[in-house]
Amino acid sequence: MKLTTVREIYKNKEKYIDTEITIGGWVRSNRDSKAFGFLVISDGSYFEQIQVVYSDKLSDFNKLTKVNVGAALIIKGTLVATPGAKQPFEIQATHIDIEGESSSDYPLQKKRHTLEYLRTISHLRPRTNTFQAVFRVRSLIAYAIHKFFQERDFVYVHTPIITGSDAEGAGEMFRVTTLDPSNPPLNDDGSADFSKDFFGKETNLTVSGQLNGETFAMAFRNIYTFGPTFRAENSNTTRHAAEFWMIEPEFAFGDLNDNMDLAESMLKYIINYVLENAAPELEFFNQFVDKGLLDRLKNVAESDFGRITYTEAIEILEKNNNNFEYKVSWGCDLQTEHERYLTEQVFKKPIFVTDYPKAIKAFYMKENDDKKTVAAMDCLVPGIGEIMGGSQREDDYNKLLARIEELGMDTKDYDFYLDLRKYGSTRHAGYGLGFERCVMYLTGMSNIRDVLPFPRTVGNCEL
Amino acid sequence: MKLTTVREIYKNKEKYIDTEITIGGWVRSNRDSKAFGFLVISDGSYFEQIQVVYSDKLSDFNKLTKVNVGAALIIKGTLVATPGAKQPFEIQATHIDIEGESSSDYPLQKKRHTLEYLRTISHLRPRTNTFQAVFRVRSLIAYAIHKFFQERDFVYVHTPIITGSDAEGAGEMFRVTTLDPSNPPLNDDGSADFSKDFFGKETNLTVSGQLNGETFAMAFRNIYTFGPTFRAENSNTTRHAAEFWMIEPEFAFGDLNDNMDLAESMLKYIINYVLENAAPELEFFNQFVDKGLLDRLKNVAESDFGRITYTEAIEILEKNNNNFEYKVSWGCDLQTEHERYLTEQVFKKPIFVTDYPKAIKAFYMKENDDKKTVAAMDCLVPGIGEIMGGSQREDDYNKLLARIEELGMDTKDYDFYLDLRKYGSTRHAGYGLGFERCVMYLTGMSNIRDVLPFPRTVGNCEL
Repeated sequence: MKLTTVREIYKNKEKYIDTEITIGGWVRSNRDSKAFGFLVISDGSYFEQIQVVYSDKLSDFNKLTKVNVGAALIIKGTLVATPGAKQPFEIQATHIDIEGESSSDYPLQKKRHTLEYLRTISHLRPRTNTFQAVFRVRSLIAYAIHKFFQERDFVYVHTPIITGSDAEGAGEMFRVTTLDPSNPPLNDDGSADFSKDFFGKETNLTVSGQLNGETFAMAFRNIYTFGPTFRAENSNTTRHAAEFWMIEPEFAFGDLNDNMDLAESMLKYIINYVLENAAPELEFFNQFVDKGLLDRLKNVAESDFGRITYTEAIEILEKNNNNFEYKVSWGCDLQTEHERYLTEQVFKKPIFVTDYPKAIKAFYMKENDDKKTVAAMDCLVPGIGEIMGGSQREDDYNKLLARIEELGMDTKDYDFYLDLRKYGSTRHAGYGLGFERCVMYLTGMSNIRDVLPFPRTVGNCEL
Repeated sequence: MKLTTVREIYKNKEKYIDTEITIGGWVRSNRDSKAFGFLVISDGSYFEQIQVVYSDKLSDFNKLTKVNVGAALIIKGTLVATPGAKQPFEIQATHIDIEGESSSDYPLQKKRHTLEYLRTISHLRPRTNTFQAVFRVRSLIAYAIHKFFQERDFVYVHTPIITGSDAEGAGEMFRVTTLDPSNPPLNDDGSADFSKDFFGKETNLTVSGQLNGETFAMAFRNIYTFGPTFRAENSNTTRHAAEFWMIEPEFAFGDLNDNMDLAESMLKYIINYVLENAAPELEFFNQFVDKGLLDRLKNVAESDFGRITYTEAIEILEKNNNNFEYKVSWGCDLQTEHERYLTEQVFKKPIFVTDYPKAIKAFYMKENDDKKTVAAMDCLVPGIGEIMGGSQREDDYNKLLARIEELGMDTKDYDFYLDLRKYGSTRHAGYGLGFERCVMYLTGMSNIRDVLPFPRTVGNCEL
């Protein structure tokens, strides 16, 4: 069908004013007064809607006045400028076809619904203003990330979803299996016999693509992953989901400073892309969801991010220990209250905290010369706290092997990873960005369930 | 580190000739003759490699002559034009640092390895020419797909990976669970008690995002998915993997013709993007992997795809029944031999076959007026057969409900899907592109295991 989209009309209105056009879309509201009816139509292509005026000169005027919210219409008419009105133009309809009716029990009547209620109708909530804005921005952020890395010749790698190993030795995992669920084959010792499973071994859903990604970075130099990751954690918070998407860039011949440079320019690139391509959506968030959003995003896009070591951060935080629920001292992990204090109160802009104690960070991070800290970095932003985390990787074969053994991990599982340090090892680094946390940050939405199209959390797997 | 990439040198050689540059990369070969040594270096940024000449004026000349294949080096020197030589330039080294040694047991010595062998070292095979080409092209195709849809204002939707329903009622699925693998909780009837599982019900890995995608198309008009999908099929062929990626566009206010137009222009766009951005890789495939590749791709990019109905296709095929292993008649499904005959022998270009018998297609496809066929389409291309499949969707509530009941499916599972036909239903359509099949098509690689970074097939889940 040759239809003009509402996006196209808003973008090139000069071209369409006083011409006849045909649009297709869904009714957001329908009211009539005597000889005229007024429809507000969303066609999904653009955040803004368009008003359609129809008169009783249309033969089916009476039928049209009874069209319910949610119905799909195909509308032919003339686009007319409406100077002084709220909207810059309207369509004066010459013909309206009812493509699909709606009924009076349509769950999205023209009134304010709570986000909690909308979560119960995840197949319909994308039709509301809030979720039109959220999911379009989500799509734009995803594309901005691809664009950023592809413009810099990073190779996109699809690291595997089903994995035979526990990448970081961290996090509860989901098992993937085709064994009989009620009567699994057993070994002599009573454990499940995974040799009979689909892959001939126990397999799980990935918690990170990093280790696989590193194998590609040692071949392509610059790579990134962007795929779903999973945590079977029984935590019911506004920031945790069982299924979420993650971006994990990794690059060879680079160190922790290069890593911070890359992360900083990526975040600024994303923000600028969304500011440019989703202006009406961001205006909406700024007005209805998070009042300071636009200022905060613009501030981040224009700031040079601060950079301090963990040790320096602890010195600053210790002076404020009276005001923290969790008191800090060297060696402890930072809580959100500490992170937000640093970025919001002390620096008033995003910062990187680097060189954390070895004991609280992952085995693969590069040991610093002090032997107490590792070349880790966390990026903290106002309003959120940590948004990205990464490190330079241990590239010394012997040190890495010793660390794996020291932590009681099975070296056999890491043969491939150790090989990267045996054959042409080079300094390399990378970081992870939780995609949903990024979407929350750019929209001001405060519950991860509201930035995931179909959220999966403990006890919830609808549709 | 400030290094110049080999890609940058090839792209802007005028800028770098006769200047001093520093590169980092991995040794592909190292030979010496008397006073000179010759390194071939790949830095992973570009398919082509670069030659480095080092002389015995370097203090560590002897050490350098012993550097093994696979080692990582950082090389400083002058880029010098070499007119008449195979490569357009070389680096005359003034200083070489060994960043990471390699040893003589490096599995990728300078000789031809079989693809089968390389599959056993999936962490190292990206360092070979073939897989440098495959995985860079894979990345470029992925980006071309995003670019195509984003330029047309399609919204990218992350449909869920873990699902509580069997989307198409088709295909063996992987179960996702956190229940005790050897001693699962049981109901009174002896079946597994999934109410105790993480999500409180039985969950599986998705086989398609289409039904979820449709809910977004009825809000955003134009959407696409691009994510991993899964089949627990015990089939050990060169074309099947248990984990693969799929693209599923879906759009409202469009019919089967619009669907074919979209699919055709997408495929051409991808081909043109790769021809423009991966010329050396495609030359390589054309020379070493699949001799007719470039001609075939250019032919596809320039053809108007043919369009015939299934009924017409059967008439053509029946005339050739003597030469088919499987004889055709109206009502049967088409085999690869039939598909290839149509596209390769009859049309000599890609074609769409449309309007298949209702009985052999999925429940959600729109019934045609003849009540025997549905508005389905398969896109067949020379050398492969089917590469995309899709349909206009049944948008009539009563017809869809009747079909779901007729097939004995549980209507409760499809309440959300039926709602889309209840509230503002509109004609809509979409298709699925198997991403790996597309990568195989554009590279000429004949085994799906060789276009997946870490392939998962029955009995195989390495790394």
